[in-house]
Amino acid sequence: MPSLETYSKELDYSYALGIFPCMEAMKKAPETVRRLLISQKGEDSEGVRTLVQLAADKSIRVETADKVLGKISGKDNCFAAAVFSKRELKPDSDKPHIVLHNPSDKGNIGTILRTALGFGLTSVAVIAPCADVFDPHTVRASMGALFSLNVSVYSSFADYRKDYAEHKLFPFMLTGSCPIEEAVRQKGDRYALVFGNEGAGLPEAFASYGVPTRIPHSDSIDSLNLSIAFAIGAYEFTKRGV
Amino acid sequence: MPSLETYSKELDYSYALGIFPCMEAMKKAPETVRRLLISQKGEDSEGVRTLVQLAADKSIRVETADKVLGKISGKDNCFAAAVFSKRELKPDSDKPHIVLHNPSDKGNIGTILRTALGFGLTSVAVIAPCADVFDPHTVRASMGALFSLNVSVYSSFADYRKDYAEHKLFPFMLTGSCPIEEAVRQKGDRYALVFGNEGAGLPEAFASYGVPTRIPHSDSIDSLNLSIAFAIGAYEFTKRGV
Repeated sequence: MPSLETYSKELDYSYALGIFPCMEAMKKAPETVRRLLISQKGEDSEGVRTLVQLAADKSIRVETADKVLGKISGKDNCFAAAVFSKRELKPDSDKPHIVLHNPSDKGNIGTILRTALGFGLTSVAVIAPCADVFDPHTVRASMGALFSLNVSVYSSFADYRKDYAEHKLFPFMLTGSCPIEEAVRQKGDRYALVFGNEGAGLPEAFASYGVPTRIPHSDSIDSLNLSIAFAIGAYEFTKRGV
Repeated sequence: MPSLETYSKELDYSYALGIFPCMEAMKKAPETVRRLLISQKGEDSEGVRTLVQLAADKSIRVETADKVLGKISGKDNCFAAAVFSKRELKPDSDKPHIVLHNPSDKGNIGTILRTALGFGLTSVAVIAPCADVFDPHTVRASMGALFSLNVSVYSSFADYRKDYAEHKLFPFMLTGSCPIEEAVRQKGDRYALVFGNEGAGLPEAFASYGVPTRIPHSDSIDSLNLSIAFAIGAYEFTKRGV
């Protein structure tokens, strides 16, 4: 393997930075982990020792590499990083889907992945253009949830839709005609919760693609944050059992 | 007024940075706005012109101050800032409360304030130690919601509680014995939703202070993000009318 580079979208690998994300990578997707980097400074910490043990169990190579850790994390106090191969997994046809249309913020995507996993929504389609789902910032914001999910990036919504024509669509829109509690009653077995970009929301055309869903809120705010709207959607759609 | 300084917690004023937060400051709390700073670069933009008009309507002084804007925002492209006096407003005794116990992240506090306003929860108590609720980052993350809310900082939970002994407490805890949907049925007219620190949550003692409330989620994640848990709590407690 060539020497590790500062992360960029073009690389076919990325980094899970920090103890917890490393743990998740090695536990949930060990086959994608190329090596574990640890810091000499952290060698005595319990977290790092647990990681090293886990790496041994999974036959993952461990390297002490303080300099590389500093370079790839941009920080002095990053004690561990898992180098992992990027891998997209297709959404499961039999499960509900999350569709994120043109999300532009890595932190939002990460938070959404974590919340999705928390509510048992494990199939995620991300429609480009979008922020990089494999970027270390996204991985970290997801607290490693990325490694437990089926996540795929599609070049267009049509491209996603042709593979999953059966899923009933619930586009979340400020102008949605159907309040969320009513929408939930129509969900059926296979559904997709569709969310738009942070600033622009979903294009108007989505209103005709399914049940345009609205989370009622006061006029005092323009809209809820994307990750907040997503959380309420995920909570409400799954609370009676997915 | 002396020359404006880079923000620090000790100042008795702060900044609302950006068109939208400035608009909210001048519309919702004009009496706190000392002056409006605008950038020469932005003078022709519609947003800045709207701000200038609003300032005239509210008799707020306007200054063109590109250099100061650059200094206080740390950016080249900040077109407007409202300089406002910090002001705490006590939670309303007759309304439901939000209590944030030791929140440490400004972005989280801002997002929570915006979400709270969206769900009509307008009384917020923040228990120190905590991140600065008046910091420009908090204000910006709240999208100016701060200016529509009653927000007060208390030195301890006991200090808050002595003024509002009647509010039924719903501490949100991972170990909470009462699932949220059941908790909602016990809320009554005056209640307080209590949330702990991002990392540590609430101290165990809170379980005995009221109805320890849990948002059910899968074992695949340790916990929901604070702002996400808050959003679900606020949504669920208010959706049948506050």
